[in-house]
Amino acid sequence: MYRQKQLPESIKQPRVVIIGAGFGGLQAARALHKAPVRVTVIDRTNHHLFQPLLYQVATAALSPADISAPIRHILRKQRNAEVVLAEVTGVDLQRRRVVMGHRSLPYDYLVIATGASVHYFGHSEWQAYAPGLKSLEQARAIRQKILSAFELAEMERDPQRIEALLTFVVIGAGPTGVEMAGAIAEVAHKTLATEFRHIDPRQAHILLVEAAPRVLSTYSERLSRKAEQSLTRLGVEVLTGQPVTNIDDEGIYTGEKRIAASTVLWTTGVQASPAGKWLEAPMDRAGRVKVMPDLTVPEQPAVFVIGDTALCEQDGKPLPGIAPVAMQQGLYVAATIMRKVRGEQEIPPFHYRDKGSMATIGRSHAVVQLGPLSLTGFVAWLAWLMIHLLYLIGFRNRLLVMLQWVWCYLTFQRGARLLTLTELETRKPELEKIA
Amino acid sequence: MYRQKQLPESIKQPRVVIIGAGFGGLQAARALHKAPVRVTVIDRTNHHLFQPLLYQVATAALSPADISAPIRHILRKQRNAEVVLAEVTGVDLQRRRVVMGHRSLPYDYLVIATGASVHYFGHSEWQAYAPGLKSLEQARAIRQKILSAFELAEMERDPQRIEALLTFVVIGAGPTGVEMAGAIAEVAHKTLATEFRHIDPRQAHILLVEAAPRVLSTYSERLSRKAEQSLTRLGVEVLTGQPVTNIDDEGIYTGEKRIAASTVLWTTGVQASPAGKWLEAPMDRAGRVKVMPDLTVPEQPAVFVIGDTALCEQDGKPLPGIAPVAMQQGLYVAATIMRKVRGEQEIPPFHYRDKGSMATIGRSHAVVQLGPLSLTGFVAWLAWLMIHLLYLIGFRNRLLVMLQWVWCYLTFQRGARLLTLTELETRKPELEKIA
Repeated sequence: MYRQKQLPESIKQPRVVIIGAGFGGLQAARALHKAPVRVTVIDRTNHHLFQPLLYQVATAALSPADISAPIRHILRKQRNAEVVLAEVTGVDLQRRRVVMGHRSLPYDYLVIATGASVHYFGHSEWQAYAPGLKSLEQARAIRQKILSAFELAEMERDPQRIEALLTFVVIGAGPTGVEMAGAIAEVAHKTLATEFRHIDPRQAHILLVEAAPRVLSTYSERLSRKAEQSLTRLGVEVLTGQPVTNIDDEGIYTGEKRIAASTVLWTTGVQASPAGKWLEAPMDRAGRVKVMPDLTVPEQPAVFVIGDTALCEQDGKPLPGIAPVAMQQGLYVAATIMRKVRGEQEIPPFHYRDKGSMATIGRSHAVVQLGPLSLTGFVAWLAWLMIHLLYLIGFRNRLLVMLQWVWCYLTFQRGARLLTLTELETRKPELEKIA
Repeated sequence: MYRQKQLPESIKQPRVVIIGAGFGGLQAARALHKAPVRVTVIDRTNHHLFQPLLYQVATAALSPADISAPIRHILRKQRNAEVVLAEVTGVDLQRRRVVMGHRSLPYDYLVIATGASVHYFGHSEWQAYAPGLKSLEQARAIRQKILSAFELAEMERDPQRIEALLTFVVIGAGPTGVEMAGAIAEVAHKTLATEFRHIDPRQAHILLVEAAPRVLSTYSERLSRKAEQSLTRLGVEVLTGQPVTNIDDEGIYTGEKRIAASTVLWTTGVQASPAGKWLEAPMDRAGRVKVMPDLTVPEQPAVFVIGDTALCEQDGKPLPGIAPVAMQQGLYVAATIMRKVRGEQEIPPFHYRDKGSMATIGRSHAVVQLGPLSLTGFVAWLAWLMIHLLYLIGFRNRLLVMLQWVWCYLTFQRGARLLTLTELETRKPELEKIA
């Protein structure tokens, strides 16, 4: 018979429940490692996901495991921490419990770091045609879409269908869109260039469609220009100032113009997790919870919301939904909880220190914005590589990602070009159309 | 408009169609690289899979992409070869065409190398409870089953349910079963040992159940004994001479004895692909096509069957379903096709040269059988490592697998411990049972 493990005598320490083990939640949990509290991290998957490299999984450069680290493993030595694999369905503010279906957990302090999902601006029907990139599953689905488009084109004989199959539209020219478009261009023009017999992948069209007048619109105009130049050099057609008005299974419309494309990807529009609804707290249109200067929810001094789930304004502008913001917020919340546990009354407000933002555009090019400073080209790209390796969790992941980058850089190859049977099943209707 | 690629002038060379890009099919295709023939390789996935390491994907040591290589990439420089991604549904012997749904391809020579799938000896209902290990998807499903069993046990409070969740039954003590059981023991007793707070993974039961009187029954008795000793040392309970009489969603029966287990894996019983039915050729009970001494189908001198799909007897015994047999057959078939193309009448029969067989049992142990010679322990294990790295296709895969092995060896960690949202969905019924 199985012997139940002896638990340490239940000590009357405050319970900190953290929902979500992304950048913010994990940072908060780790920063509490010496605090006299019991930490419970709840996540609906078993791993921390390094989202900034998700586009490399979607474009077959890396394997899902390379950018994931098991949460249990990260926190295994943190004696005051426990990990719960569960999907949170609500928060009972009255009874101070986190609800996970028919189970629930009590908290004294609650940190909500549940991130965001893809948002289609009221056109949820577009989701079926233009997948977003927020989870490993979505990354695998996009990889399947890209790789199988070339395979279908190879079988197809109708030139018009071939053209649609070899047209890739990336909607949204933020960092993810720019990175995706650059990577797809490399897949088509380099990786697959010589591997087909009936089509020439180098003839693929990669379009980056953006409603705003320029790419990377949160960066300086100079960097936008540089980024657009790099994209064009990579063979990406950049269409700015063109809001998408419709998407269906055969392509997109921008205004009256129709672009026939078998692969359409959605990298714009973010919807915060349903945390705001759980809390019945004031939200903005993207569903982000409007937080107080100390990142708590109004009238809930024990409930913090951080990362992409929070609307946190600074100097009159909302902070962007990027990892550094979430991480600094996680650290701040951990410090604040420690202050509160010690009985301190004075809580200094959260202040984000801008350490810059960066996007990479294909091989050897990147743009870095650091306040008024900006960096482009090869140096920026090296900085991008270093920073991303540094923040990746785990020696194994760093080593494997670095090696695959080196290999990819030298050979133009991508190591995770997998199309499984189940994935191909999703293309069956199109396969059957081929004569 | 898309410009159709100019195809080289269709030369009147014989068309060799190879179905399946496993060890046999790929070897045949590559060996024909200088032959005056047009080679078409058809596979239903886009990659060659290194099946001997599939159990390491199933036990979270490697990522799917690490043991897969895109077929197009392998054959990209072979001018006379073309790759078709399609599922073959039949063969039209009269009209000499391979049928893929509503499409078909003509052949002059046909090589069927479609492998085998898992067989449940007439109990196909067991498949739902005891997945087999033949594809990447099955490997991912097993990984999900193993990892989520520990997660569910961590949540569960009923000691009996915890015991069932921490019981892992591997059915079949051939090489795959032995390797699986050893790897699961390492996951439980080492990798996860300190990562849970409510359960102790070291208390997990790993059972290896075999109907035959000894493990690795195709090896010498001495090696069987050695393997069993190694397994016991790893904490695997070996039950030989115990045929499984039933499997359901709560465990297995061997005779009257019931073993409650949440995870049951099936590594015995192999069913050849439906090639025999396509050809209406004589088959054995496992569905393998009985081939002539030159590996052709009786009365079909242009149709070859090789690898796990063929029943090829030598010295009165059928050759085993292992990679070296398939590879030697692939080479032989390529040479035979070249002879036939040259108009030679004398075709020497196929002869398998036994280069030995090997199985690994956890870290630092393996058994190698080389005719009457046998090798065990650390030296055998090093031989196993070398041979497997050597036969893995692609420099990247070799490097990544080697590094992950070194890392795994030094840290006891496994890098591909992923549980995604969709995977967890499959455990929902059990999750809901937990109080």
